[in-house]
Amino acid sequence: MTAGVDVSLDDILAEIAALGPLDAAAMAAARDHLDRLTKPPGSLGRLEELAIGVAGITGQPFASIARRAIVVAAGDHGVARQGVSAYPSDVTAQMIANFVGGGAAINALAEAAGTSLTVVDVGVAGPITMDLPGGERAVRLIRARIRDGTADMTEGPAMTREEALRAIAAGLDVVAGLRVAGVDVVGIGDMGIGNTTAASAIVAVMAGAAPAAVTGRGTGIDDATHRRKVAAIERAIARNAPDPADPISVLAAVGGLEIGALVGVILGAVAGRVPLVLDGFITGAAALLAAGLAPGVAERVVAAHRSVEPGHAIVLGRLGLRPLLELDLRLGEGTGAALAIQLIDAAVRLRDGMATFTSAAVSGRVDGGARGGPSS
Amino acid sequence: MTAGVDVSLDDILAEIAALGPLDAAAMAAARDHLDRLTKPPGSLGRLEELAIGVAGITGQPFASIARRAIVVAAGDHGVARQGVSAYPSDVTAQMIANFVGGGAAINALAEAAGTSLTVVDVGVAGPITMDLPGGERAVRLIRARIRDGTADMTEGPAMTREEALRAIAAGLDVVAGLRVAGVDVVGIGDMGIGNTTAASAIVAVMAGAAPAAVTGRGTGIDDATHRRKVAAIERAIARNAPDPADPISVLAAVGGLEIGALVGVILGAVAGRVPLVLDGFITGAAALLAAGLAPGVAERVVAAHRSVEPGHAIVLGRLGLRPLLELDLRLGEGTGAALAIQLIDAAVRLRDGMATFTSAAVSGRVDGGARGGPSS
Repeated sequence: MTAGVDVSLDDILAEIAALGPLDAAAMAAARDHLDRLTKPPGSLGRLEELAIGVAGITGQPFASIARRAIVVAAGDHGVARQGVSAYPSDVTAQMIANFVGGGAAINALAEAAGTSLTVVDVGVAGPITMDLPGGERAVRLIRARIRDGTADMTEGPAMTREEALRAIAAGLDVVAGLRVAGVDVVGIGDMGIGNTTAASAIVAVMAGAAPAAVTGRGTGIDDATHRRKVAAIERAIARNAPDPADPISVLAAVGGLEIGALVGVILGAVAGRVPLVLDGFITGAAALLAAGLAPGVAERVVAAHRSVEPGHAIVLGRLGLRPLLELDLRLGEGTGAALAIQLIDAAVRLRDGMATFTSAAVSGRVDGGARGGPSS
Repeated sequence: MTAGVDVSLDDILAEIAALGPLDAAAMAAARDHLDRLTKPPGSLGRLEELAIGVAGITGQPFASIARRAIVVAAGDHGVARQGVSAYPSDVTAQMIANFVGGGAAINALAEAAGTSLTVVDVGVAGPITMDLPGGERAVRLIRARIRDGTADMTEGPAMTREEALRAIAAGLDVVAGLRVAGVDVVGIGDMGIGNTTAASAIVAVMAGAAPAAVTGRGTGIDDATHRRKVAAIERAIARNAPDPADPISVLAAVGGLEIGALVGVILGAVAGRVPLVLDGFITGAAALLAAGLAPGVAERVVAAHRSVEPGHAIVLGRLGLRPLLELDLRLGEGTGAALAIQLIDAAVRLRDGMATFTSAAVSGRVDGGARGGPSS
């Protein structure tokens, strides 16, 4: 079901290395246009920054964001056997059926944001049984399963290095297909019972932080489960000793197949100059790995929101990203990314829809300031 | 052009006093429904709180928000003669023509949020010349001018007490008309060169704060203008000595006609159990006056965003409101309110669009927790 576009990680990393800095001329042109619109310069705050950021990433002052996609990567986690989640692993496959049936949170928010929805199974553990009625918006399910869930990282690596690379390649393949279809903006999300444990382990290793400082309550676990979760992460890191200078080894040792696929989607979008909207903690862990593989990733992605997971603030700090929203979300699925895409939509509507001081015959500043009004 | 519904401030204040607390049964029913949906309980954070809040205000667990309105009140300020703004007073009338022509920021964001747009002239100083092409979305202009701008508050009261009451009545009339048309949610905004000076003075008086601590950069003024602005507010308060226990006297002494109209819109919406979405600093100053007139207002309004104006944080603190968005906006016009209405839309889409654990055959929590999953 994928586009069959042949992409290699090495090629993508070379493309990213060749990108250079954000397009300063496109950003200056976007800013100049925004300053001519009937509002005080800069008064739309981060919405103006978003429009300028999209110009810098795409190289186009008036980049379209008409064609929007959300990609949700799904996988199961052997570490769930350690009793680290409030929900059984069965829920991963059940939720994929729910996505395809149109009943999940991301279906509602993707529709609100006008995005397509693609779900990629790179490592769900069990069969996906879909006997649900179709949702209003067609959801594409890509079956690219590499293995039936990861191994238990407390007993050895979650996956082999080859499997980690295949997971990344699956994500690259998905985004390559979207690029062929002309996508303008990509948001990402995750589904996988146990994946805050994997993401916490990744962030602990990549940021050199203590697992207890990184690890949160996931789907809503109690104190005893939280202690088991921290202990499992500590054992997994001790057992596998992943090297933060080698992000692939970290992904293989303590990561997840869906996190690998998300690394691929991020890298593919960045290489293609497509604005990439992160979601919360899991996608943040993937971004930390992607940034470890390719410097320059952080300045070409948008942080949608700040999750309540404590590790997410560490991720955002490491990447130097300020999230757009703080709504205490902790669901994943790309729900925060969809909300952020609505803000990007708002930014672009303002950029394209407003009158200028001149066209609307509105007077400029009394001080003839350098920016704003007819004098600019 | 108004609905001609006869409303008195005393009647509205009596209606609000009779409302009692938020509807606990409706809120409990909304929460119970949200906890049955296919997500961990509470994982959609403030979006869930919004859905529950709408239930508490309206008394309906599944309140519709299909019919949405933004009301922008406009007026000019005599204090602008003191050189407190970066823009000339002419801009107020010019921007109203721009609203009607569809070229302002609020036009773009109202369209994105699916709201109607009503502009009320309660005190613009000059003629409104409209020779612009019509916007895509019809904008209603209500001509309810009470006087041609306020008097200069550094030399005496901005308006008489009777004019202040007429401004509030104009706002009550607008919202009464919207209620007749069946509005489900109302966002408010402002337009008026010089109105951050009036709002700063109101907040300084109502919160007992120093003008220098409240007063910001408005549309983007320089240091010298900022010093003039603070000094003007200090002179106005010293000259008029308004009594914070009498909000009408504060409005008359140092307020604005559009701020008075906004007080009326807030009170009318609250009395009608219609969720009311504030915008930024100016609407916040109006909310502070409304809350002074009618206890219970604060728990029935939604704070859209935190403006960069320093006085806005004081307003939010006094009202006990946590804003939904922090996007460094400082435009007004209801732009933040429109963005917040999109979040309320998202909350209601989730409430109404998602499957339950039972309907989607998704397993519940392993611990059979009291909330979430089939066991709840």
